[in-house]
Amino acid sequence: MEKPYVIGIDMGGTNTAFGIVDARGNVVSKGAIKTNNPDINAYMEELKTELSKLIESAGGIKKIKGIGAGCPNGNYYTGYIELTPNLPWNGNIPFARMLQEAFGLPAAITNDANAAAVGEMTYGVARGMKNFIMITLGTGIGSGIVVDGKIVYGHDGFAGELGHTITVRNNGRPCGCGGYGCLETYASATGIARTAREMLELTDNPSSLRSIEPKIITSKDIYEAAKEGDKLAIEVFEYTGKVLGEAFANFVAFSAPEAIVLFGGLAKAGDLIMKPIVDNMDKNLLSIWRGKVKVLFSNLKDADAAVLGASALAWEI
Amino acid sequence: MEKPYVIGIDMGGTNTAFGIVDARGNVVSKGAIKTNNPDINAYMEELKTELSKLIESAGGIKKIKGIGAGCPNGNYYTGYIELTPNLPWNGNIPFARMLQEAFGLPAAITNDANAAAVGEMTYGVARGMKNFIMITLGTGIGSGIVVDGKIVYGHDGFAGELGHTITVRNNGRPCGCGGYGCLETYASATGIARTAREMLELTDNPSSLRSIEPKIITSKDIYEAAKEGDKLAIEVFEYTGKVLGEAFANFVAFSAPEAIVLFGGLAKAGDLIMKPIVDNMDKNLLSIWRGKVKVLFSNLKDADAAVLGASALAWEI
Repeated sequence: MEKPYVIGIDMGGTNTAFGIVDARGNVVSKGAIKTNNPDINAYMEELKTELSKLIESAGGIKKIKGIGAGCPNGNYYTGYIELTPNLPWNGNIPFARMLQEAFGLPAAITNDANAAAVGEMTYGVARGMKNFIMITLGTGIGSGIVVDGKIVYGHDGFAGELGHTITVRNNGRPCGCGGYGCLETYASATGIARTAREMLELTDNPSSLRSIEPKIITSKDIYEAAKEGDKLAIEVFEYTGKVLGEAFANFVAFSAPEAIVLFGGLAKAGDLIMKPIVDNMDKNLLSIWRGKVKVLFSNLKDADAAVLGASALAWEI
Repeated sequence: MEKPYVIGIDMGGTNTAFGIVDARGNVVSKGAIKTNNPDINAYMEELKTELSKLIESAGGIKKIKGIGAGCPNGNYYTGYIELTPNLPWNGNIPFARMLQEAFGLPAAITNDANAAAVGEMTYGVARGMKNFIMITLGTGIGSGIVVDGKIVYGHDGFAGELGHTITVRNNGRPCGCGGYGCLETYASATGIARTAREMLELTDNPSSLRSIEPKIITSKDIYEAAKEGDKLAIEVFEYTGKVLGEAFANFVAFSAPEAIVLFGGLAKAGDLIMKPIVDNMDKNLLSIWRGKVKVLFSNLKDADAAVLGASALAWEI
């Protein structure tokens, strides 16, 4: 192959990770810089310096097909990072164009969850699938929807905000988006911790979690307690799985995916979360889909998945 | 144009309507037969006889590009009518193939709501739109989802069952599908009538609807009462609009459509239903979409819309 590599960039609120990736999904070299430089041009300079070292060691720019980047609110259509509360820069950033100009390579951007979906389709458990939904479970909940082999971007480029579908209508939890009852307020890492705090507060049930100051309980604490057989902690996962499974049933009615792929910290909980998800999803599905829609954990390595996902965009430019 | 016409077939549980349609969406001739012939071959014979008359008067088979049919549970991928509780035939019917063989023309089928979406995109208010959602409000609720100019069929051909997304989770109404709280149980014609009966039963509020035997109240009665200013009837539409608007907000988070297009009897209620839909949709949308997603009534003539929609499929075969 004349151009055997692509570059993947995963821009987070704190760090920007990047790597050079081959067609089989091997990250052949990688690096990272801080995202918190308030001067976007200084940030680009640093990114260029660090990435250029990797490019040289891969055989030079002629070996690279293009650049893909996953960015908060990255808009695939416009190439801009739009409305960026989690980044240090004001206004809209023409990041795709800036990458093109800095490296002289074609570049495309999208948001993190869409990048993850492209990554699963190119290198992961969704290889060969034409219709699936990617759900990233982290501090927030992101989603990337694939229909007929392509990411759904919608009219404005922002389709796939399934973390903000309203799942609990009565007395739903307040969400950072201004709404109430969004899926994210229940099934994100912070949502799960809140569920545990509420269960501890509202019941007298014994739990090893009672030894932790409620305010600092994390989803990791809950997972570890559940693994040891703590009944209340197991119930937290059952409730979380119920909310997710009910939401997934509605997603299936929309796009009839072959699978829903889960990525992120919650996936580590394995059957503790998988079983209630599948049970509750199936219970709420039309009979034509019951027992037929797979729920899968991503098989991409955590450390590389975001860079891989972003890089996968670049094969399609 | 060498082949200036297509044939559209709208198969309902009782009647099958059909027509010959030109590229501008004019139904140049039309007819209908009963659907309730228990012998599928006899049904096909009758369809062939009646349609052949129209074909002859249009200048013969060489003027026809193809046949599109909207059928209950019509699967675009397989060409089969599958799982057909509303039709008199048992098992799966290879309807697309039967049409091809009967007329020697290319044929495609899909379900009624998908056909309606293609019709709106080809001849109606969604002309020029690449991303929109069609909602058909009748005895049931159907939907057709268009992403990037194409109907979303999903992995199995059955995507777009938005009438069976669960909208009311606590104490939701039982649905014909076996589930509880489906959108269809609230916003279909029968759902609206049920809302009125419940409001009449649960309150002592005065209403002209009290002069009708509750069991036989129809959505048309409610519309007529609301038009005359009946407060309870207006509240029925407000509640229905709230349920629809909340559901639509979740649909927007999925595919970020330019518009949601409404077709069917409920559309006649105009602002009585449109205002609460838009208000409640906007209230539940992420700020990036608030005030930006159009809700439109179909502008296709009721009598022709289903045939037009089905016919539109045939331009794309």
